[in-house]
Amino acid sequence: MNDKPSVIRETDEDARKQARDLMRSAGHAALAVIDPDTGFPSVSRVLTVIDADGAPAILVSGLSSHTKALMKDGRASALFGDPGKGDPLAHPRLTLRCNAQRVDRRSQAHERIRALFLNRHPKSKLYIDFPDFCFFRLVPLDASLNGGFGRAYILSSQDLAML
Amino acid sequence: MNDKPSVIRETDEDARKQARDLMRSAGHAALAVIDPDTGFPSVSRVLTVIDADGAPAILVSGLSSHTKALMKDGRASALFGDPGKGDPLAHPRLTLRCNAQRVDRRSQAHERIRALFLNRHPKSKLYIDFPDFCFFRLVPLDASLNGGFGRAYILSSQDLAML
Repeated sequence: MNDKPSVIRETDEDARKQARDLMRSAGHAALAVIDPDTGFPSVSRVLTVIDADGAPAILVSGLSSHTKALMKDGRASALFGDPGKGDPLAHPRLTLRCNAQRVDRRSQAHERIRALFLNRHPKSKLYIDFPDFCFFRLVPLDASLNGGFGRAYILSSQDLAML
Repeated sequence: MNDKPSVIRETDEDARKQARDLMRSAGHAALAVIDPDTGFPSVSRVLTVIDADGAPAILVSGLSSHTKALMKDGRASALFGDPGKGDPLAHPRLTLRCNAQRVDRRSQAHERIRALFLNRHPKSKLYIDFPDFCFFRLVPLDASLNGGFGRAYILSSQDLAML
């Protein structure tokens, strides 16, 4: 994301707020990882919650291919924002570039994220404590916000952090 | 996708039909590519149409980062299927693994896909012929279908092809 074409606008407080709101309101994302067997990217749906510092967190099963991928290579990307009604490209969305970091089950972070997750996704109580399930924090590196036609921004990890 | 955990069901005609229907009815997808500068996966929203043989095709701008990525590395993945209402994981979705192949503007394939695209996405007439826009066909390699809780399938390119 180093080469910024001239269509990218200067990041302002409205863009920062829109980006954070997109992540917070979504509850789910399209998560892209690198498949360790083929080197191909692979994209799947995950439930999300926003941790205290603004980083998204996901709950994943050890049986799923995205989890196996993240165990070997934490480089990831997540797309937030619903396509809505009408033209899917007219609705704002955010592409996050992030490092996925597994959350230790015995950590305070696990306890905190587990509580946030149960609050946001009550049905997850059915499987949240299964031994093969775990949380990853998607630690933001930068993001590309498409706020609708003609509204493109590049955001830093600072822009995305909760203050 | 070689290691099939035991939760994967035997592919049947219902699964094949559901996978093809998900691609055909979607009209858009979350496209994952590999960013050539960082090696990270990157996921963004694209409009889609289904070509005569069942392969999805996308229209992209040369200014966008996914296009620059696909020009260098055609390995891609696309997620089809809307999250719908309620639990996003209760709704069926398909992860396609594919090779993105640029469509030559002077080819019959371009003419055919352009017509299909205009029919599916009438607003695209505003930019479909811009010189920096082009089509890619997402040639299927295989796919992972999650047809709702407990309904997981691996599909081959033959399973996805239109007969």
